[in-house]
Amino acid sequence: MMIDFTFHNPAKIIFGRDSLSHLAQEILNYGTRVLVVYGGGSIKRIGLYDEVMESLNSIAASFWELSGVQPNPRLSLVYEGIDICKKNGVELVLAVGGGSVIDTAKAIANGACYGGDVWDLYLGKASNECALPLGTVVTIPAAGSEMSFSSVITREEDSCKVGRNSPFNVPKFSILNPEYTYSLPPYQTAAGCVDIMAHLMERYFTQIQHVELTDRMMEGALVTMLHNSPIVMADPTNYDARAEIMWTGCLAHNSLFQTGRIGDWASHKLEHELSALYDIAHGAGLAIMFPAWMKYVLPRSGAKKLAQFATRVLGVPEDLGTEEDIAYEGIARLEGFYRSLDMPVRLHEAGIDDRDFDRMAQRCADLVGGTIGAFVPLSASDAVEIYKLAL
Amino acid sequence: MMIDFTFHNPAKIIFGRDSLSHLAQEILNYGTRVLVVYGGGSIKRIGLYDEVMESLNSIAASFWELSGVQPNPRLSLVYEGIDICKKNGVELVLAVGGGSVIDTAKAIANGACYGGDVWDLYLGKASNECALPLGTVVTIPAAGSEMSFSSVITREEDSCKVGRNSPFNVPKFSILNPEYTYSLPPYQTAAGCVDIMAHLMERYFTQIQHVELTDRMMEGALVTMLHNSPIVMADPTNYDARAEIMWTGCLAHNSLFQTGRIGDWASHKLEHELSALYDIAHGAGLAIMFPAWMKYVLPRSGAKKLAQFATRVLGVPEDLGTEEDIAYEGIARLEGFYRSLDMPVRLHEAGIDDRDFDRMAQRCADLVGGTIGAFVPLSASDAVEIYKLAL
Repeated sequence: MMIDFTFHNPAKIIFGRDSLSHLAQEILNYGTRVLVVYGGGSIKRIGLYDEVMESLNSIAASFWELSGVQPNPRLSLVYEGIDICKKNGVELVLAVGGGSVIDTAKAIANGACYGGDVWDLYLGKASNECALPLGTVVTIPAAGSEMSFSSVITREEDSCKVGRNSPFNVPKFSILNPEYTYSLPPYQTAAGCVDIMAHLMERYFTQIQHVELTDRMMEGALVTMLHNSPIVMADPTNYDARAEIMWTGCLAHNSLFQTGRIGDWASHKLEHELSALYDIAHGAGLAIMFPAWMKYVLPRSGAKKLAQFATRVLGVPEDLGTEEDIAYEGIARLEGFYRSLDMPVRLHEAGIDDRDFDRMAQRCADLVGGTIGAFVPLSASDAVEIYKLAL
Repeated sequence: MMIDFTFHNPAKIIFGRDSLSHLAQEILNYGTRVLVVYGGGSIKRIGLYDEVMESLNSIAASFWELSGVQPNPRLSLVYEGIDICKKNGVELVLAVGGGSVIDTAKAIANGACYGGDVWDLYLGKASNECALPLGTVVTIPAAGSEMSFSSVITREEDSCKVGRNSPFNVPKFSILNPEYTYSLPPYQTAAGCVDIMAHLMERYFTQIQHVELTDRMMEGALVTMLHNSPIVMADPTNYDARAEIMWTGCLAHNSLFQTGRIGDWASHKLEHELSALYDIAHGAGLAIMFPAWMKYVLPRSGAKKLAQFATRVLGVPEDLGTEEDIAYEGIARLEGFYRSLDMPVRLHEAGIDDRDFDRMAQRCADLVGGTIGAFVPLSASDAVEIYKLAL
């Protein structure tokens, strides 16, 4: 039976070619003292930096810049941002970039209104009562952070990568222009597509029965990704396909598809250990870990849901054979799809061997209190077996 | 190309068997002076009235009651409610019922913060700057008013039925317990299912190209309705099926599925004239008008989208024949589905003849400034032809 739920996502999404024209007014709704968070040169290369500056100047905003956000964003930069906010009375944190930039901005917005160490919020040792308002201008469709409750930060000294969900993480507004994603390199484009699909699949694989509406909406979203991902790989400036992917990426992680269900998230947690240690792109790590997870859980979960996924999403014929046959064929097709996007589907293809399996599996289990995932609850030793399957 | 859009729906949805336990706290977030709006005896029969009273008493709320809301809710009752709010400093309007009750409460919440005649807001002659907060406890899944921007009110002296969209119409919170829908009579259950499907179909039929994600999500929602509607007709206390329908009904009209698209809404407008004049249930009127509209627009719109609907939603084989053949078979199957729910699919089955066609068509066109619908723009004389097709 569908489980009781509360769904409440007040983020305002402004989407399309003309969306940035709303930025100045959206900022003004919250104030004129702004911390602008971004990564490196890419937003300057595509002219977005200048456009944001124009918007800020048009309303005579005072602003501070925090740049240098890297993939798997670092806690040290978060501390810097919090310091700027507290010293200058910042009223709005504006993230311009992808998931790492937005997740950094979320940590800053929360930390700026919290007296203690923001890392304690991530570790679940403390909670905050408020946060600075947050706006985003999105340049990478992948993390879905522009509409999600999540933020993932890595503490660099011990490569500890932790995700945190909080209503205070939901942006007040997010501006999405698919054109900003035209210049994404193929590897990042593909990794983003894999990540978006993973956000859907983590929610799809649940033991909760009678969740037909969300099942079917996610199947539609996944088919949309299967259709449009190859288009943008071949034709990076295809607005229509970029738009489908960008809007899917946003909805994939906004909690709508989670309503009434318990998601799994084992693959994400197994991948977080990979990308914390090896600095592989999160999406590439997911292309490796998700099929391995599927192979491991299939005989332990019953094949029914994996077979439904195979037939409805990947078009495996229902008369192919047993449910197990259908499910395995679905996994094979999923791997084939990832390969077609030039994503690795085995650890060795990403230059990773088995030397850290025990350490990664143990930390993964420790971070979640012993049991990884919900579709099939896994122990640290299960996790080691999944890493082995991914070799 | 997907058109630029803003999506912002801050309604908090509290869903499930235990959802009413949140009511007291939700009310307290806005105040303790409450106008409770409801229909007749049904909420008393199922015990919901008593539960709401308990919640109000548990927080020592002051409250006023406005009952007697009827289907196709009347403007006169709205005036009564506004009067109560203004005289007593009401802080929250609480609707307990279905779409008519919620739409009445929306009109009251807006009118209570507006100095002039609330009907001018519906006619688009004036606008308001604020509204009272609104909460809902839903007992009929159909209108989707619990999460929508819409409210439809009928001025009884001239049977003028007008819909209004406004951000002020979005409830602050809505409580949905599928169990409250168990006692709905079969006719209302079926009419609700037809209405929910119509909210999806009005958005589905668009001339905007490359709206794949929303197309596919709506197809999934429609298939969910096709699957679960017969289940609740046969087994009214089936929680799983009632829950699927209730959540689909809520999402069908919350504007998510409208993102990037221009909906049609001709069938709704043609039906509003019917139910304003004849007091037929809105859903039953839609079961008659939607297929008639489809038949009329098919040769005028190209068959492509109607054929996509036929194959993906109604399972018409792709090799049946031409796109036209497939589209017509889809319409036939849709009519067959409505008949299977004991809904009328012709006007004569609802005891309606052709005597008011010209008057209905003309008023329908007048209310929208001459052109009805967007998928194929229709004139008043087109509307007459569609009514004739529905005979």
